[in-house]
Amino acid sequence: MLTQSDRDGIDVVLVSPRNPLNIGAAARAMANFGFARLTVVAPFAEHWREARSAIGAPELLRSAKESLTLTEALAGSTLAVGTGSIATRKPEQPVVPLPALAPRVEAEVDRGGRVALVFGPEKRGLTREDFSRCHILVEIPTRAEQPSMNLGQAVAVCLYELATRIHPVYEGQTVLGSDPPHLNAPAAALDLLAEVIGQTLTASGYSPEPMAATNRHDIQVLLRRLSLDSADARRVLGVFRRILYRLQHPRR
Amino acid sequence: MLTQSDRDGIDVVLVSPRNPLNIGAAARAMANFGFARLTVVAPFAEHWREARSAIGAPELLRSAKESLTLTEALAGSTLAVGTGSIATRKPEQPVVPLPALAPRVEAEVDRGGRVALVFGPEKRGLTREDFSRCHILVEIPTRAEQPSMNLGQAVAVCLYELATRIHPVYEGQTVLGSDPPHLNAPAAALDLLAEVIGQTLTASGYSPEPMAATNRHDIQVLLRRLSLDSADARRVLGVFRRILYRLQHPRR
Repeated sequence: MLTQSDRDGIDVVLVSPRNPLNIGAAARAMANFGFARLTVVAPFAEHWREARSAIGAPELLRSAKESLTLTEALAGSTLAVGTGSIATRKPEQPVVPLPALAPRVEAEVDRGGRVALVFGPEKRGLTREDFSRCHILVEIPTRAEQPSMNLGQAVAVCLYELATRIHPVYEGQTVLGSDPPHLNAPAAALDLLAEVIGQTLTASGYSPEPMAATNRHDIQVLLRRLSLDSADARRVLGVFRRILYRLQHPRR
Repeated sequence: MLTQSDRDGIDVVLVSPRNPLNIGAAARAMANFGFARLTVVAPFAEHWREARSAIGAPELLRSAKESLTLTEALAGSTLAVGTGSIATRKPEQPVVPLPALAPRVEAEVDRGGRVALVFGPEKRGLTREDFSRCHILVEIPTRAEQPSMNLGQAVAVCLYELATRIHPVYEGQTVLGSDPPHLNAPAAALDLLAEVIGQTLTASGYSPEPMAATNRHDIQVLLRRLSLDSADARRVLGVFRRILYRLQHPRR
């Protein structure tokens, strides 16, 4: 069972939720299972206001954070977990079945990391761009005929799983995305690194304009797959800053 | 993982649901996790019509059964599992934590039983009378500060648990309500038996009118706690019919 301080190391992040009832349902599931930290990214202003002012809205909804972008919401996270159906896309990140997620999350918070569980908007789910900010994807084992879950129910199922499982045994499934030996660098450090690498590729002529967006995406995915720790990230950043400076100030 | 024939041995029973959105959400969770058999007991007619005719309502909602009473809905069930918060009442039935439910349900369907998962109405949950028709109570491990779950979310969490757990390890919890060595008698047989025993108590003067309802309730609870099989139920029924006949036709 997760302790309260474990739960405090976990953020629930809702990206552009549309339906105020779903926002309320997500908050209620958090209260049911003892999670308190909610961030809402780029909500539809009117619906967000409506959800927060609903009668009986839990305290955590009123104290929720609001971010303009997913990048901003994840700035302090060391493990970002994207949720969604992978039926229709080929994932670029390691996929962890939900029944195998708890030990991974627990290990991360036990060593002082911050975990974000990221849920997409009702209709379309998280985009490929959103997923590029996630270290792993969690898959709720739904049926192929009806893979897509209601947002409030998906949040409830994920939090139930995290709240109740200690060392789950999930037979017949290999647990992908095993623990890296260190704490990942926070997302803000990776974003800065990705930005500087992107500028370097452009300055070097590696990344012509039509390819720039694709390359930036690939860098975000790669940096997370590598599980860089903070020292790694600083070191690599120093290297690329030096290269970039040299490209911008060529010796005569 | 439950097989499809396992899932076909499980009924979801919603008692007097009020909100059409919750009925729809329950049906969607069933479709997500591959359950097809839905029974709705004494629904509010208008809301039930609305839920069934909603755009995108899953097929299982259109083919759902409707019962007037919970007793009728459970007639063919050999294991009725009540859901709800036990925070505010002292349960008369064995309580099984949700993370320990799957093996109990699986064993029952494996030997040909029929399991019903029973959910109460949104505001008040199942009544003590409803619970008297259940063999065990399942407890979703929610927090004391906010124990009550949204109906659609409670259904989703229970079905997720059943769909994904084979031999769950749930440490630090004793599994109550261990498997009886035989299949329980179906509820209809127990209801008939309870009725005849009740008449017998009245005819014998054991059960004066003011106590009759309480005694009937206690009999329902007792019969389920005893885990009578069909042969037991027939035998006991024969005994009480004989006694009742003799009470009604005393020898001179």
